[in-house]
Amino acid sequence: MQLTRVDCVELDRQDLLAPQRERFMLPEGVIYLDGNSLGPVPKGVAERLVRIIEDEWGHGLIRSWNAAGWYDSSLRIGRRLAPLLGAAPHQVIVADTVSVNLFKTLVAAARLRPGRKTIVAELDNFPSDNHIVDSVARLLGMTSRFVAASEMSDAVDQDTAVVQLSHINYRTADIQNMRAMSAAIRAEGALTVWDLAHSTGAVALQLDEDGADFAVGCGYKFLSGGPGAPSHVYVAERHLQGLDQPLTGWFGHATPFDFRKDFVRADGIRAMLCSTPQMLSTAALEAALDALSDLHIRDVQEKGRALGDLMIRLFDERLAPLGCGLASRRNASQRGSHIALTHPFAYQIVQALIARGVIGDFRAPDVLRLGFGPLYVRYADIWDAVHALEHILRSGNWQTMPLPAAGAIT
Amino acid sequence: MQLTRVDCVELDRQDLLAPQRERFMLPEGVIYLDGNSLGPVPKGVAERLVRIIEDEWGHGLIRSWNAAGWYDSSLRIGRRLAPLLGAAPHQVIVADTVSVNLFKTLVAAARLRPGRKTIVAELDNFPSDNHIVDSVARLLGMTSRFVAASEMSDAVDQDTAVVQLSHINYRTADIQNMRAMSAAIRAEGALTVWDLAHSTGAVALQLDEDGADFAVGCGYKFLSGGPGAPSHVYVAERHLQGLDQPLTGWFGHATPFDFRKDFVRADGIRAMLCSTPQMLSTAALEAALDALSDLHIRDVQEKGRALGDLMIRLFDERLAPLGCGLASRRNASQRGSHIALTHPFAYQIVQALIARGVIGDFRAPDVLRLGFGPLYVRYADIWDAVHALEHILRSGNWQTMPLPAAGAIT
Repeated sequence: MQLTRVDCVELDRQDLLAPQRERFMLPEGVIYLDGNSLGPVPKGVAERLVRIIEDEWGHGLIRSWNAAGWYDSSLRIGRRLAPLLGAAPHQVIVADTVSVNLFKTLVAAARLRPGRKTIVAELDNFPSDNHIVDSVARLLGMTSRFVAASEMSDAVDQDTAVVQLSHINYRTADIQNMRAMSAAIRAEGALTVWDLAHSTGAVALQLDEDGADFAVGCGYKFLSGGPGAPSHVYVAERHLQGLDQPLTGWFGHATPFDFRKDFVRADGIRAMLCSTPQMLSTAALEAALDALSDLHIRDVQEKGRALGDLMIRLFDERLAPLGCGLASRRNASQRGSHIALTHPFAYQIVQALIARGVIGDFRAPDVLRLGFGPLYVRYADIWDAVHALEHILRSGNWQTMPLPAAGAIT
Repeated sequence: MQLTRVDCVELDRQDLLAPQRERFMLPEGVIYLDGNSLGPVPKGVAERLVRIIEDEWGHGLIRSWNAAGWYDSSLRIGRRLAPLLGAAPHQVIVADTVSVNLFKTLVAAARLRPGRKTIVAELDNFPSDNHIVDSVARLLGMTSRFVAASEMSDAVDQDTAVVQLSHINYRTADIQNMRAMSAAIRAEGALTVWDLAHSTGAVALQLDEDGADFAVGCGYKFLSGGPGAPSHVYVAERHLQGLDQPLTGWFGHATPFDFRKDFVRADGIRAMLCSTPQMLSTAALEAALDALSDLHIRDVQEKGRALGDLMIRLFDERLAPLGCGLASRRNASQRGSHIALTHPFAYQIVQALIARGVIGDFRAPDVLRLGFGPLYVRYADIWDAVHALEHILRSGNWQTMPLPAAGAIT
């Protein structure tokens, strides 16, 4: 028997996470399935920003680096993120951007394996990850090699210094088996750098247990830290001494205020810092984490899986017959908190959906990506989104949608 | 005849820039002489941040990358800064931090001079500049060499690829002759990378006319962009094609939304971008620039010089006899918008000043640094600050001030 909207509303009624939606500002008339690209505003962020501007910056002025705890914010927020990553508090910092942090961790990892000349990365990483891999290989006089995840074990050998992988694929949401992959790579003596962009805050991570060496995550997707929110870096305990990363700014100096001419690297995770944090964006991320406090990440993960399962069921019932494909795995435990549908006219269909108030995104060449922020997306939202999509596909409405302008952001 | 406070109040009355002070939030009872470290809050920044959070992020969600102009913010703010730098609008971007931008520009510059094996930098640069120089030299298999500004011309030769200099020294405020230095360096075929941290927004710059190759500036000092505000990068017209910097993130890609596997570098100044800007901090900087709009930077520069001249006159009359030294130049045209006094107990004296509501800062080992934000510091403030300092020196009050804790921010 086909599922009905009433069934979905009943699922929401039974959902223990349903009240969390109240923690977010969500515009009327919008179904937001793009929180995997930019999470919505957690309530309290605007108030926090007014306070940091008027009180801390305005009244405290330069004194707030100490008095308001700005100076320690990178480590303090890192400690808060650590449980989401399955890490100890002293293994995580918040700073810079995903690409800059990948750059730092890749160089630091490669320097822990001197003599090895290859960096291997997943062919299907987010493209800029691999552009950073190429850049690091060039700087260090190494070779970069890109292979499919399924061929990774074969590709890694005794010449491999570092392997860069995505925990959750940005298009398909495929989850890698971090434990098995890390073990296989470690068996060859190589180190792993994981991209957690689509993982942190959406799924339960256990980086320590799974044997990751380094990892880099994103602040603006499932953490809802705001547009361009600072990224985070994880380092395994065994590498915390001897971190040798190339962005040797003063926040990574052991005694920055001695103004020493020589660079004495800070101990532990602080060595991954470079320079002065962009404090307004950093404060927004910190305030946003309140929206995740008091929650068990496993409950969040389960809700995301259930939303994805519902989407797939409705896809089978209503969308597959209309020429839509499914590029994500059906097994929820192998899937992150988004779903990739495929259609030759995915770009126009996404535009038509947005025109109807359902916001997802397009990923070239043919993916319609729908993300499920487990704290604010309702089961009924999934129903309504599929209903809109079905209507668009049946009516051919998407055919009137404009094509992207050259160079436009899609 | 000694100057009186009444004389200073009269200077304020005649000051055409005096009304600009109203554009800033300044706490009661504080004389703020540390805007060269963190500029005060321009009015309107808090409102702008509430708007970006509630309207653009809150209602616009992901659509605001296009609709609210986030995507172009780096270039748009760059265009606004260009006149302050003496550059054309397409030569400046806003992004990342000073250290990260130095890293990018140093590598890009070195790659324009293949075969040359030395990076020369000023011995008295801000220390982390030179730590970045060392890191770049190590990555590129080059040698770094640090020499005093006065010996720079002799040190640069045909093996020198890049020279990294400070336009205004962070301790003494000494200004380099950019035109003469650039010409001498260019005569050897080397390129210059200028640190403008203490220059942008305080003094009139003419990077194009003075022959600079690359430059990096700071958003949180004289621009009052907020704690850790994003930095800016200038590139001379002749280098805008062929920029080859190593942080190859997706904002520096020619067509980021094609998700191409190969890196095709964006044209022009956009090539200096790396990844997603921290938009809340970026929006604050943009709003802060309103405080500088409608002003001529030469007028701002003149006021800063006049404040410094007043400080030196009062120093001569009141502080020199009490064991204080002057480490800044007397000729205002060779000096930025701060003054360095010296005293063996500078640290404690700065603490005693702060306890009296006069905020300056300490720079190891013995410098008491007093900065003059020309838009909000009054001549009478200089008088009052000297009065407080004189009182502290005469009374020995500083002797009761605590010494810094180990690792404390001073």
